[in-house]
Amino acid sequence: MIESDLLAHIYARAASLASFPQVEVGPGDDCAVIACPESRRILLTVDQLVEGRHFERLDPSFTRAPIDAIARKAVARSISDIAAMAGAPTATLATACLPAGFPQAIAGELFDRVNHWAAHFGSPLVGGDIACSAAGTPLVLTTTVIGAPHPMRGPVLRSTARPGDNVYVTGALGGSLASGRHLTFEPRLAEARWLASNLGAGLTSMIDLSDGLGLDASRIARASRARLTIQASLVPRHADCPDWRHACSDGEDYELLFTASPGSVITSADRTPVTHIGRVEAGEPGCTIVDPQGSPIDGAGMGWVHGTS
Amino acid sequence: MIESDLLAHIYARAASLASFPQVEVGPGDDCAVIACPESRRILLTVDQLVEGRHFERLDPSFTRAPIDAIARKAVARSISDIAAMAGAPTATLATACLPAGFPQAIAGELFDRVNHWAAHFGSPLVGGDIACSAAGTPLVLTTTVIGAPHPMRGPVLRSTARPGDNVYVTGALGGSLASGRHLTFEPRLAEARWLASNLGAGLTSMIDLSDGLGLDASRIARASRARLTIQASLVPRHADCPDWRHACSDGEDYELLFTASPGSVITSADRTPVTHIGRVEAGEPGCTIVDPQGSPIDGAGMGWVHGTS
Repeated sequence: MIESDLLAHIYARAASLASFPQVEVGPGDDCAVIACPESRRILLTVDQLVEGRHFERLDPSFTRAPIDAIARKAVARSISDIAAMAGAPTATLATACLPAGFPQAIAGELFDRVNHWAAHFGSPLVGGDIACSAAGTPLVLTTTVIGAPHPMRGPVLRSTARPGDNVYVTGALGGSLASGRHLTFEPRLAEARWLASNLGAGLTSMIDLSDGLGLDASRIARASRARLTIQASLVPRHADCPDWRHACSDGEDYELLFTASPGSVITSADRTPVTHIGRVEAGEPGCTIVDPQGSPIDGAGMGWVHGTS
Repeated sequence: MIESDLLAHIYARAASLASFPQVEVGPGDDCAVIACPESRRILLTVDQLVEGRHFERLDPSFTRAPIDAIARKAVARSISDIAAMAGAPTATLATACLPAGFPQAIAGELFDRVNHWAAHFGSPLVGGDIACSAAGTPLVLTTTVIGAPHPMRGPVLRSTARPGDNVYVTGALGGSLASGRHLTFEPRLAEARWLASNLGAGLTSMIDLSDGLGLDASRIARASRARLTIQASLVPRHADCPDWRHACSDGEDYELLFTASPGSVITSADRTPVTHIGRVEAGEPGCTIVDPQGSPIDGAGMGWVHGTS
């Protein structure tokens, strides 16, 4: 892989940026230049995708690598963070740390697919960086996305749930890794925007479900200094998800978990089903999952806790 | 290394953001929220720092790792890209992909030093991501920096040098890796801003010297569709740089290479020496380095060409 050849490949495709008026300067200079959103506030997020952790180790020749799925997931995870704020993505930066011997053609394809998916989500690729590491080291991608908050509602934080609010989730949960949905999920951009537009200040807090319902609900609870109580029997699950425990802890669903003021009645968001699964209460900050037999479980233990040791 | 413990360490330090009014929401939510600059345009850049490539392989226990120097370089490289546009940095995102077994205390120290250097350059750390990879894999850091263009001059691009312009460089070049300056360089933020304020539209193009004078000058030349001719004998070099060839090709100087309209007379920028080293001419796009004997050399070959094979 020769970086200068790959960069030439990348710059040659920058012309497609003409359809994104927010991009004043795209790839090829020291920085990209982007017009600020009307709201004069920007959202910023970055995520990593690591071979062997977020997707399976690639075959040694890389020729059977699911490049499109890897590129899609790398972009969609950061787009989902923008959705979790009810924002609209504006522009994307990506980096790749490639192992020595990574074939030029596959590196070009990887760029093309990242470029494709970034544009697909309305957030064109405007810059990035390519580095090379020793042979045999894992492929590491990062995706930075900047976005605009919802023009009326503003950014929807994790820290603003209030006692008395109801707790909702979009779509269905569980079995994402086993089914492959962790590679094909649809970030809930339109749903989040619909909720912000229709509920306004009644949409009190929101997060995207990446690490598991119990753990992510605990994050809203701790940030809001409140207690979220979720009824496991109410949690909607995919047909291939074996039981409530998987639905509450598998993670990688990328559905929206949100809270809304008591008066709100919500059954769908932009045609995606929305399910009422619990309540926000005053009390020791944390999440209680009430199992189908009525026993309380600490939500913080229901999810993916990252660590290497 | 337990990610949740490290995140708790990180969030506990977010209070220091109070001194940065541009940060509305810092680490701990799905996205950071940043106020747009007055100019309503933002600069965006990302760079990677890879163990074994941008800094030496660490000892197996990581206890002798030069954590502060690694953190500083990771941040300063992206800050230098903002300087190359004559911008002011606003906010920083960082990611770390840590090998299994990376000690918790050293991961915490790495975060603290990235946090320190980002704030030092006026660009507080507002978010990021931590991932873990297999034991023995290299440490990979990325740093995304957003910034504001110069309020009057706007972004200074690579593509706007014009025939008749003079070519200048700040400071001195060469020997950066051998001397260790590649870890301690000062991004030329103040100098770039001084140039933009004092020359205005007369500052016609700029780049920071990361890969080598010849190669980086070729980038301005190709982007501007002009020929840069640089006299090697005029290129200022550090006392420990053995000869003109090293000064023209070593790279990692992070000095500013810029072009200015013919009328401009420039000998310093914000107290840093500035040296006139060449001219922009019409002709086949590219850079000619004229060696001390008067022979022309293609600048594109004088620098670090990245590649793994």
